[in-house]
Amino acid sequence: MATKIGSRTLRLDSRPGILSFAAVGSKKESEGPLAQEFDQLCPDAAFGQPTWEQAESYLQRECVDLALAKGGLSPQELDLIFAGDLLNQCIGSAYGMRGMAVPYIGLYGACSTMAESLLLAAFFVDSGAARQCLAATSSHFCSAERQFRFPLDYGGQRPPSAQWTVTGAGAAVVSSLCPPQPCVAQVCPGVILDYGIKDINNMGAAMAPAAADTLHRFFEDTGTGPEGYDAIFTGDLGQIGSELLLELLGREGIDIAFRHQDCGLLIYDREKQDVHAGGSGCGCSASVLCAHILPRLRDGRLNEVLFLSTGALMSPTSNLQGESIPSIAHLVHLSSGRKGGD
Amino acid sequence: MATKIGSRTLRLDSRPGILSFAAVGSKKESEGPLAQEFDQLCPDAAFGQPTWEQAESYLQRECVDLALAKGGLSPQELDLIFAGDLLNQCIGSAYGMRGMAVPYIGLYGACSTMAESLLLAAFFVDSGAARQCLAATSSHFCSAERQFRFPLDYGGQRPPSAQWTVTGAGAAVVSSLCPPQPCVAQVCPGVILDYGIKDINNMGAAMAPAAADTLHRFFEDTGTGPEGYDAIFTGDLGQIGSELLLELLGREGIDIAFRHQDCGLLIYDREKQDVHAGGSGCGCSASVLCAHILPRLRDGRLNEVLFLSTGALMSPTSNLQGESIPSIAHLVHLSSGRKGGD
Repeated sequence: MATKIGSRTLRLDSRPGILSFAAVGSKKESEGPLAQEFDQLCPDAAFGQPTWEQAESYLQRECVDLALAKGGLSPQELDLIFAGDLLNQCIGSAYGMRGMAVPYIGLYGACSTMAESLLLAAFFVDSGAARQCLAATSSHFCSAERQFRFPLDYGGQRPPSAQWTVTGAGAAVVSSLCPPQPCVAQVCPGVILDYGIKDINNMGAAMAPAAADTLHRFFEDTGTGPEGYDAIFTGDLGQIGSELLLELLGREGIDIAFRHQDCGLLIYDREKQDVHAGGSGCGCSASVLCAHILPRLRDGRLNEVLFLSTGALMSPTSNLQGESIPSIAHLVHLSSGRKGGD
Repeated sequence: MATKIGSRTLRLDSRPGILSFAAVGSKKESEGPLAQEFDQLCPDAAFGQPTWEQAESYLQRECVDLALAKGGLSPQELDLIFAGDLLNQCIGSAYGMRGMAVPYIGLYGACSTMAESLLLAAFFVDSGAARQCLAATSSHFCSAERQFRFPLDYGGQRPPSAQWTVTGAGAAVVSSLCPPQPCVAQVCPGVILDYGIKDINNMGAAMAPAAADTLHRFFEDTGTGPEGYDAIFTGDLGQIGSELLLELLGREGIDIAFRHQDCGLLIYDREKQDVHAGGSGCGCSASVLCAHILPRLRDGRLNEVLFLSTGALMSPTSNLQGESIPSIAHLVHLSSGRKGGD
């Protein structure tokens, strides 16, 4: 049973475990620092599919199938799937999951989707109403570029503040049946914030206030601080957004620099890979969670971790209409289950 | 606490109540048979906004504000908002809800969003972790037409199987604090089904199999049949989808004709309003729920109701790529709380 703590945080009293998880990437991810940690890296960004959108659906399904296989599970053993992606009408997920025959809750949280889906999956398992729920999301550089920016063939120049959409997916099965290592201890859903940023090539700046707000609120609700956690991972703030996050929290007297890492800065080597301000996309925090963070919680290299995916909730249409970029950050407190707590 | 019944249904043991609700429409809705039941009907489809997308955000927010006001609530009394819409990246909801300062779970379920959001809101309240949650969604004829079909100015011809996107919104507050009249007794989330329909102008046909599947599963899970309910409302199958639903269920030996109504057929007068196969859009089942169904549950004209919103999960891109239309239907069993129910 979940208990509300403070104004926004939910403590999941059963601490539902993450039974299995998988991360899939493509060529760019295979050239990055985390390559060895992915379950699968497909050098063909088309994944053998005729279109980029179908490639993304294939990628997400592949990742889900891997997560299930690693847990020795069939789809029939899932009670619910929580998934979403960046594409218009979330077709990456709808077409990826359509053959699963598992009840499906479609989400749209932009790049916050991995934390959003994990939060809901863990909540349902914690409630006792579901035994096993899947959280999944994906993004694809090629489908995202042509949808949000320019057709690939156009070869548009990208400003230094732009980020590179990860071609990748992450999937995790939350289960009441496994020993709680790693487990979901607490969750803190985010509110929509808008600081008036209008530059669609500077998502990190647009999302940093949401990350700062959720983190600040979580610390208040739980009476903890950054020192209580081995690491605080934000989703895809990139270089600019990460600096802003530290500055915004600094103004509140909170210093997280000694604990903070950003998935968008971990997944690529900015010196060598021409990704400008870092990685982004739903698949960024999703694949880093499943390739890099969860394995460390499982083997005890990390014990208490805050995982915050951040999402920019604009569309190309709202941007062309002169709107600023609303953003959101959902937080999941993950624990190795070794220390007994928070 | 929720209890899983059969393969997919969740019984919400606390039967969380719907404290307040509101429905907002525009000109076309004001000319339809349900006009008197709406809380607000704005003759200006632009709602005073410069763009159709901004009009939709305004409309959704207006509806949410009304639902809160009718319940004597402030946004601060909400624990969570569950919302989504049809627009790319769900900007109707993100921009509509951005000023609320309430934790936000963004959904994409196409026209199934009202049942999806209500299902989640009720589940969170039932769990005891949330006291009050809001479920909301909207659609707008003008923003949907230009996004899914043609710019309005083009004046494209619509085939007889096409449906008319409702310019409307619905919002409902689920609360643990009110007497359970009406209340959410059970929910049954849907799976994604795809019967191979590719005609983007025949959504009713694409969605009927999903509605049939969810309804069939719910009856199996609960050991009930259509005679156990005063009415079974589908979301926006329209004329063609409704006929197909009856046919598909008939093959399974289930006759719902004497109980079935479709929100897409209720909201407009097909003889007089030139809407072809009926109404559609997230706002269709949402506004009919809040204008027509919930008031009848409150005053006892209806006691046990099944509410199924249906969603077509394609996008214009997937359609142009030759893909068929996956669809989904989520079910919410609403009760007046008077009979003691099941």
